Amino acid sequence: MATLGLIEYQDASPEVRAVYDDIMATRKTDWINNFWKALANDPVTLRRTWRNIKEIMGEGGALDRLTKEMIYVAVSVTNQCNYCIASHTAGARKAGMTDAMFGELMAVVGMANETNRLASGYQVEVDEQFKA
Amino acid sequence: MATLGLIEYQDASPEVRAVYDDIMATRKTDWINNFWKALANDPVTLRRTWRNIKEIMGEGGALDRLTKEMIYVAVSVTNQCNYCIASHTAGARKAGMTDAMFGELMAVVGMANETNRLASGYQVEVDEQFKA
Amino acid sequence: MATLGLIEYQDASPEVRAVYDDIMATRKTDWINNFWKALANDPVTLRRTWRNIKEIMGEGGALDRLTKEMIYVAVSVTNQCNYCIASHTAGARKAGMTDAMFGELMAVVGMANETNRLASGYQVEVDEQFKA
Amino acid sequence: MATLGLIEYQDASPEVRAVYDDIMATRKTDWINNFWKALANDPVTLRRTWRNIKEIMGEGGALDRLTKEMIYVAVSVTNQCNYCIASHTAGARKAGMTDAMFGELMAVVGMANETNRLASGYQVEVDEQFKA
Amino acid sequence: MATLGLIEYQDASPEVRAVYDDIMATRKTDWINNFWKALANDPVTLRRTWRNIKEIMGEGGALDRLTKEMIYVAVSVTNQCNYCIASHTAGARKAGMTDAMFGELMAVVGMANETNRLASGYQVEVDEQFKA
Amino acid sequence: MATLGLIEYQDASPEVRAVYDDIMATRKTDWINNFWKALANDPVTLRRTWRNIKEIMGEGGALDRLTKEMIYVAVSVTNQCNYCIASHTAGARKAGMTDAMFGELMAVVGMANETNRLASGYQVEVDEQFKA
Repeated sequence: MATLGLIEYQDASPEVRAVYDDIMATRKTDWINNFWKALANDPVTLRRTWRNIKEIMGEGGALDRLTKEMIYVAVSVTNQCNYCIASHTAGARKAGMTDAMFGELMAVVGMANETNRLASGYQVEVDEQFKA
Repeated sequence: MATLGLIEYQDASPEVRAVYDDIMATRKTDWINNFWKALANDPVTLRRTWRNIKEIMGEGGALDRLTKEMIYVAVSVTNQCNYCIASHTAGARKAGMTDAMFGELMAVVGMANETNRLASGYQVEVDEQFKA
Repeated sequence: MATLGLIEYQDASPEVRAVYDDIMATRKTDWINNFWKALANDPVTLRRTWRNIKEIMGEGGALDRLTKEMIYVAVSVTNQCNYCIASHTAGARKAGMTDAMFGELMAVVGMANETNRLASGYQVEVDEQFKA
Repeated sequence: MATLGLIEYQDASPEVRAVYDDIMATRKTDWINNFWKALANDPVTLRRTWRNIKEIMGEGGALDRLTKEMIYVAVSVTNQCNYCIASHTAGARKAGMTDAMFGELMAVVGMANETNRLASGYQVEVDEQFKA
Repeated sequence: MATLGLIEYQDASPEVRAVYDDIMATRKTDWINNFWKALANDPVTLRRTWRNIKEIMGEGGALDRLTKEMIYVAVSVTNQCNYCIASHTAGARKAGMTDAMFGELMAVVGMANETNRLASGYQVEVDEQFKA
Repeated sequence: MATLGLIEYQDASPEVRAVYDDIMATRKTDWINNFWKALANDPVTLRRTWRNIKEIMGEGGALDRLTKEMIYVAVSVTNQCNYCIASHTAGARKAGMTDAMFGELMAVVGMANETNRLASGYQVEVDEQFKA
């Protein structure tokens, strides 16, 4: 089979279930989204990816949850990853992103993608002031 | 000539000088970075780009300046635009980004770029919950 | 019409049929996938692209078929090209890619996309040792 | 050695020299740019790539040389490929691109990169009218 | 709601209607495509984006409409933006792009994406001649 | 300061030194490349990234070291990450990549980047056979 199926909780190994349980407990939800059910085909990657996400996206750091989710959306939009745009826009909404915030987020992401190309196309050299 | 030179203030037309003056006044600085001096070869693009940046990156919206600058860095890093990484990292620093914030910003950007590809590579379909 | 139709064998010119015949003979299959049927709208591009693919992906070189197909998947996932992910994952499967190999392939592709951005974001300079 | 050297004409095999000769004759120049000297480390890729470029970028098709070179620049800027931006901007200049044309080319490339992300970020579905 | 709805004309504010009216008048059409209906959720971005598009894609500059639309397609294909590929391929068709032109456009875009990576992968340095 | 300095071994905290020691022991080398010295500014990211790399790139899995390094190069070239191209091409060389292998790797990467865009540009739909 070219594509791998989604591993549902009832069909999962104890190792995979342990990750699923931790995802639901951490997120205070009672369901697992497809991303994790797909990764579960490779339990090593499932465990490593969840451990990393938990460390990076967790509370208590220098950036709040909403800011991190908006940065995640910015990257996903730039890469045109449909799944990630849908899931992390939902995540940012859950973390408090308003329509006005979403609008400004898109405006900055669009503008950054534009000026990134203007800078490269005009072959602009980095100013000494930015190297200091 | 394949590449265009940088237009310095003393060599600029009144139209270009007016944009330069507004950039310096808005940013409360006494210099213009190379990006604008390169765009000045096309005064229409210079004027339009500055007008857009001023509208998008200005104060008073739903997102604060620091958040916007970090989003700008996230996009620039994802696109691997060296000039923009240098200039907007400096901009974020100026807006208050600490070393700890920068570290977390990079962590999120790196992770998002990774999971974007895991989602696509595993051909994960968008959950109904994210479409609601 | 904005999009071009697919050119089926029975509707194809002798020139296009010759390429289709060679694709099926080379691949030992009795069908043509949509990519080629779309390219057939431009017979010059069809012929050139097939000639290149045949030269690059053929047997007998320094890299075996499976390795080449996995590299193809790595690029397609990085570019988020849905068609190419589907077709080349199938191609890699046909060439012997196991679930375990697919899992490791995705892990490396994900990690590489992450560290590519960490290297750029931290503005890391190339070590002298790598230039030697 | 991590990086491969450039193959100069005097050190090249007869096979590589034949390609170099054809490049110079076709372009009516007396030098070879570094791209080809690097590819010459793999004569098969050198020959295939030059054959493709000659077929695609040659005169007599539906698009003129200048339009093709500007499209080449548009792609290279979007991909942030410094070498290709430099070489194809020079190529477009040679084919007649004026400063005004370059300015408009950059404006379109920048804007397209922006609206590509707005379309994805807002998760816009394709209109029926565009599928017709 | 994770995704924003499309704002139809009858539900739009006077500010949004004014933009819609200008789009239809400028394009001599009687309908608005989904991109603008989605942006209308943020009237500031709607107005700015249309103003920019009108300035950049308008008639009377150094590049004709067809060339600009083909450049737009080249960028959208490189970024793999499905919406933009569909809408701007339609736009280029409307501006006069023939099947033969489309075929050559795709050929150049494909080739540029290939040689962009060959140049980077072989770590080719920019020739002095291209810096002049 | 806009850019962060490199943390040398003698200036590193015990936590960072422990990672450096493990890198050198695992790789059987006596030096640390700049990537890790830059990440050391954020010890949490340094530790996490090295742990991930060690798990993913280690021996004993379904893919051998050389294959993994070539996949890493394929991704880095596609993303145009200069640092990663230099470091992982060196890594692949060390793992046994010959000039012939490198040539074929580049050929596949280039071709994949080309056909990714042809597939998207022609708006090719995924064949049912690839979904099975």
